[in-house]
Amino acid sequence: MGGSMRGFSPRIGALRESPTRKIDELREKLRRENRDVILLSTGQPSIPPPREVREALGELLKVDTMELYGYTPSQGIYEVRQAISEDLRRLGGLEVPPEQIVLTAGGQAAMFSTLATLIEPGDEVVVTDPTYFGYKPLLEYFGAVVKPVRTRLEDGFQPNPEALKDSVSRKTKALILVSPDNPTGRALKEEAAKAVVDLAEDYDFWIITDEAYKTLIYEGSHIYLYKLAPDRTISINTFSKDPAIPGWRLGYVYGPPEVMPKIKLVNEEMVYCPPSFAQRLVAIYLRSEARMRYIREVVEIYRQKRDVAVAALRKYVPEARFIVPAGSMFIFVDLSRYISDGESFARELLERYGVAVVPGSYFSEIYRAAVRISFVTEPPHRLEEGIRRIGEALKAT
Amino acid sequence: MGGSMRGFSPRIGALRESPTRKIDELREKLRRENRDVILLSTGQPSIPPPREVREALGELLKVDTMELYGYTPSQGIYEVRQAISEDLRRLGGLEVPPEQIVLTAGGQAAMFSTLATLIEPGDEVVVTDPTYFGYKPLLEYFGAVVKPVRTRLEDGFQPNPEALKDSVSRKTKALILVSPDNPTGRALKEEAAKAVVDLAEDYDFWIITDEAYKTLIYEGSHIYLYKLAPDRTISINTFSKDPAIPGWRLGYVYGPPEVMPKIKLVNEEMVYCPPSFAQRLVAIYLRSEARMRYIREVVEIYRQKRDVAVAALRKYVPEARFIVPAGSMFIFVDLSRYISDGESFARELLERYGVAVVPGSYFSEIYRAAVRISFVTEPPHRLEEGIRRIGEALKAT
Repeated sequence: MGGSMRGFSPRIGALRESPTRKIDELREKLRRENRDVILLSTGQPSIPPPREVREALGELLKVDTMELYGYTPSQGIYEVRQAISEDLRRLGGLEVPPEQIVLTAGGQAAMFSTLATLIEPGDEVVVTDPTYFGYKPLLEYFGAVVKPVRTRLEDGFQPNPEALKDSVSRKTKALILVSPDNPTGRALKEEAAKAVVDLAEDYDFWIITDEAYKTLIYEGSHIYLYKLAPDRTISINTFSKDPAIPGWRLGYVYGPPEVMPKIKLVNEEMVYCPPSFAQRLVAIYLRSEARMRYIREVVEIYRQKRDVAVAALRKYVPEARFIVPAGSMFIFVDLSRYISDGESFARELLERYGVAVVPGSYFSEIYRAAVRISFVTEPPHRLEEGIRRIGEALKAT
Repeated sequence: MGGSMRGFSPRIGALRESPTRKIDELREKLRRENRDVILLSTGQPSIPPPREVREALGELLKVDTMELYGYTPSQGIYEVRQAISEDLRRLGGLEVPPEQIVLTAGGQAAMFSTLATLIEPGDEVVVTDPTYFGYKPLLEYFGAVVKPVRTRLEDGFQPNPEALKDSVSRKTKALILVSPDNPTGRALKEEAAKAVVDLAEDYDFWIITDEAYKTLIYEGSHIYLYKLAPDRTISINTFSKDPAIPGWRLGYVYGPPEVMPKIKLVNEEMVYCPPSFAQRLVAIYLRSEARMRYIREVVEIYRQKRDVAVAALRKYVPEARFIVPAGSMFIFVDLSRYISDGESFARELLERYGVAVVPGSYFSEIYRAAVRISFVTEPPHRLEEGIRRIGEALKAT
């Protein structure tokens, strides 16, 4: 289009299609060919929200007014933020007033709006390696310089204080920490959490903590960084995993009082208000008797699946290296004793063995021979069968 | 925070709270004081989606699987895009394949992602004056230089070809046109539409057309600019007005094949996927027998309300100048024969007379003595009473 004004913004050059979306497309193609695929690639929950909550919501659809359909405040309905505030107190003993909570159109919008609020081009942002694949393109879109800090399987993927220190500088704007972690399943331990907070105070940068899996804990308990550093911690949350409404798009951010009105404004510009129907569900859910019971049941079911996956890995892929996840939905499996390229292995595994996983290279520059296995989406017998096929595929390479 | 890295992005300085949100807050305060307010400020529909559609949706909530709750493709569910494609053919004779439609988290996200895709800092963007108050801050956020083109009440707010030509240059990246218009209710006429398209072709810029009110037409018919210039028209749409689910946040963009994958990518980064529950409603709605009947009924009810508002204005505010809206939900009333400052008048009107309107200065540099009246939200008797109080308040000034 030489000379034309009909071009595009150069900034969007940083954006790439989500890798799991590419896997979804291939999966869709196989489905059209009537081929069954065992889905170990997606972090989609397998248990819908409590039936009583869904039924209460269904009743609201019968009312002939605009009540259920109208705009909500751009920060989210006050009662929903109150219910979240109570939930954070119950779960973690946190004191976060509703005024410091901003509801968003999912965890992705929570992170997008937080980065839009904080990042100037040239700012340095520290992220762990491995980390969730969504953050690097987003940081590049906002012009940040990504500074990876390696975490090692041998250390249980806990960030190492010395390595952390090497990754920060006076240009560090923020550090992003996912806990429980995607893809490794590591839950941050107290010592590492304290090292992060000390460093953030020394260099005066923001801590952005992605707590999408905070209620999916199988061992120990979740550390709320906000409790350790309320002045500098911005917490990203979602209702996609608990109570399992990923498609409905609702999440929230909480953090210090001076930053929240700005994050609210960005969300108002992006989507005007958070989806109201999902807000209604969450209002009912968080204050229902079902809330704590549901999450206990879900954790118990996911823990059993996790144990099935771990046992199957030990049986069918004995040379695999991984940590038993303390939280989240994933096992990050280093296959370097079998293969060197996880990406071509994952493609082969999907096309010839009908098993979808996400290659390690999407999360890490180092663990390129790894794959991420989600243990929540499939029922136990298919989970085990998927891992058996991974072993079979590895034997054939 | 001198010397600290804990600052904010300077770009968000362009963002301001939506002015109708400020009115909402004042309204909320009056409500807490138990004062009734007649709401002529908001473009919120008054008729919920068809009952049969809501009931069908309620049935889905009873099913114990993840089907209703899971992520959807980031472009939106294919069947929903197919239904939209059929709807555009039925409504306007358009041929837009589902591949060229991207579902978004509402019309605001549709515009945000379109501007993110197109705008480089320094690009000039032409907007009419008056225009929807949401666009100027958004354009400034993306670094665009806003070039207003005045439209005049005497011309029925149709853009004038000469004035249009004066506003464009070789740096013009896009022109934004709302039709039927918010705030003026003007529906673009063929002559003005052709002038816009000719100019866009001469200067080779994008046409961004906001068609939020395309089915709310009371006189004549809606002109689809995409039909006249399919290579350069990007159309912004919403389901907030039809079928009246503003809080659920669903809209869509369609346009030329080369631009849509980029807009899709931006939406994926912003919100991952459009809200799925709203997608389900739209899928049922657009393909139901209720679809055309519902919009006919809504248009008939809104037309009656419009006529009530017009008659009341002529009776109680005889020196008011306005065009009878051919579409949308609004009458833009020039009160310059009574007052000079619409903003202080609107505040006075709300606080002392309990009637909420939006001042003209939020839409226009020129029509600062105007107010925007929404005629859809309140029932006819309250609409008339609100306008009677406007006349009373004007007499007292």
